[in-house]
Amino acid sequence: MAETPRTARGRATRERIITAAAALIREQGVAETSLDDVIRRAGASKSQLYLYFNDRAALLREVVAQNADLVLGVQEPHLSSLDSWKAIRAWLDSLINLQADGGARGGCPIGSLVGQLAETDEQARELLADGFARWEEPLRRGLYSMQKRGKLDPNADPDRLATATLAAIQGGLVLTQTRRDPGQLAIALDAAYAYLRSHRSPR
Amino acid sequence: MAETPRTARGRATRERIITAAAALIREQGVAETSLDDVIRRAGASKSQLYLYFNDRAALLREVVAQNADLVLGVQEPHLSSLDSWKAIRAWLDSLINLQADGGARGGCPIGSLVGQLAETDEQARELLADGFARWEEPLRRGLYSMQKRGKLDPNADPDRLATATLAAIQGGLVLTQTRRDPGQLAIALDAAYAYLRSHRSPR
Repeated sequence: MAETPRTARGRATRERIITAAAALIREQGVAETSLDDVIRRAGASKSQLYLYFNDRAALLREVVAQNADLVLGVQEPHLSSLDSWKAIRAWLDSLINLQADGGARGGCPIGSLVGQLAETDEQARELLADGFARWEEPLRRGLYSMQKRGKLDPNADPDRLATATLAAIQGGLVLTQTRRDPGQLAIALDAAYAYLRSHRSPR
Repeated sequence: MAETPRTARGRATRERIITAAAALIREQGVAETSLDDVIRRAGASKSQLYLYFNDRAALLREVVAQNADLVLGVQEPHLSSLDSWKAIRAWLDSLINLQADGGARGGCPIGSLVGQLAETDEQARELLADGFARWEEPLRRGLYSMQKRGKLDPNADPDRLATATLAAIQGGLVLTQTRRDPGQLAIALDAAYAYLRSHRSPR
């Protein structure tokens, strides 16, 4: 059984292994990333790896969780206050800028793992779903708040709108990564924003 | 150097190997699929594998190409005539039904390979991009035709509309696979269709 590290040093080693695995997987995918690569990159030993992780699958799940934290963290402070049209537009623009800055490489750190893990590891799939839920929630909350304040049509469904927007983000990132063109995400998010705006309050 | 099979029997063996690899990858991803698994499933030998494919990467590229053919083939006859609102809606509904029939498993056979191959194999990335281009083109063409016949706003941009729709499909499939819920694709495509329809001709 893998141990939870009891010392600060142990925790740092465990974290370093996850970070190394996450970086390698972002660069080259799960298939090309061996545990030997991971310990080399982390400057750790195989015994340390197996001290903290039962197996490769357990490590991959930690990568999913870390990637989700990374994706959500990088979207702050936007995610904290998606309760105006201006804030939503600025958030979407920040996502496009991130892709432009990163050369349209790598795709979404959560989404790009779905095809690699969802069919083989049910726990990993649930962690990926959890990442998406945490991503969708701030927009959902913001839209409900806007509806309460008369900025969003009372007949609009914030749950569905938030899901449709997250789908546009994910699809835009798939096309951006494939075509190496952040303009693909821009097109997807312009459409998503226009669709959201079509639900603005008629008042 | 890999050979192009000269006999019908050789071609059938080569095709069987690609089909076996594609099926395994759909079920369990690139990382979990070994060449030994592939030849076992295909009922082929290692020497046949290396006769027709230089290496694992070459086989994976053929899987991309075959998956693209599969995805496009299954959308016929819809893709041949996306030149009315009714035809577009029926096409989108057929995509949702496919996911419902398949238990919301597997995601998009093209899109789910992007995260697995785009960063490590430039040729595979180009084949994935080619698959998306072939997918987008029929809608683009249909929208141009609708514009010509006064069904689509003359100020609308069919290229951007087709890309936004493909992004919604891809993102909807990512969420469908992750959440095991075809309703996710339905939400994404209802939004995509409403966005398209917002560009219908004002006449």
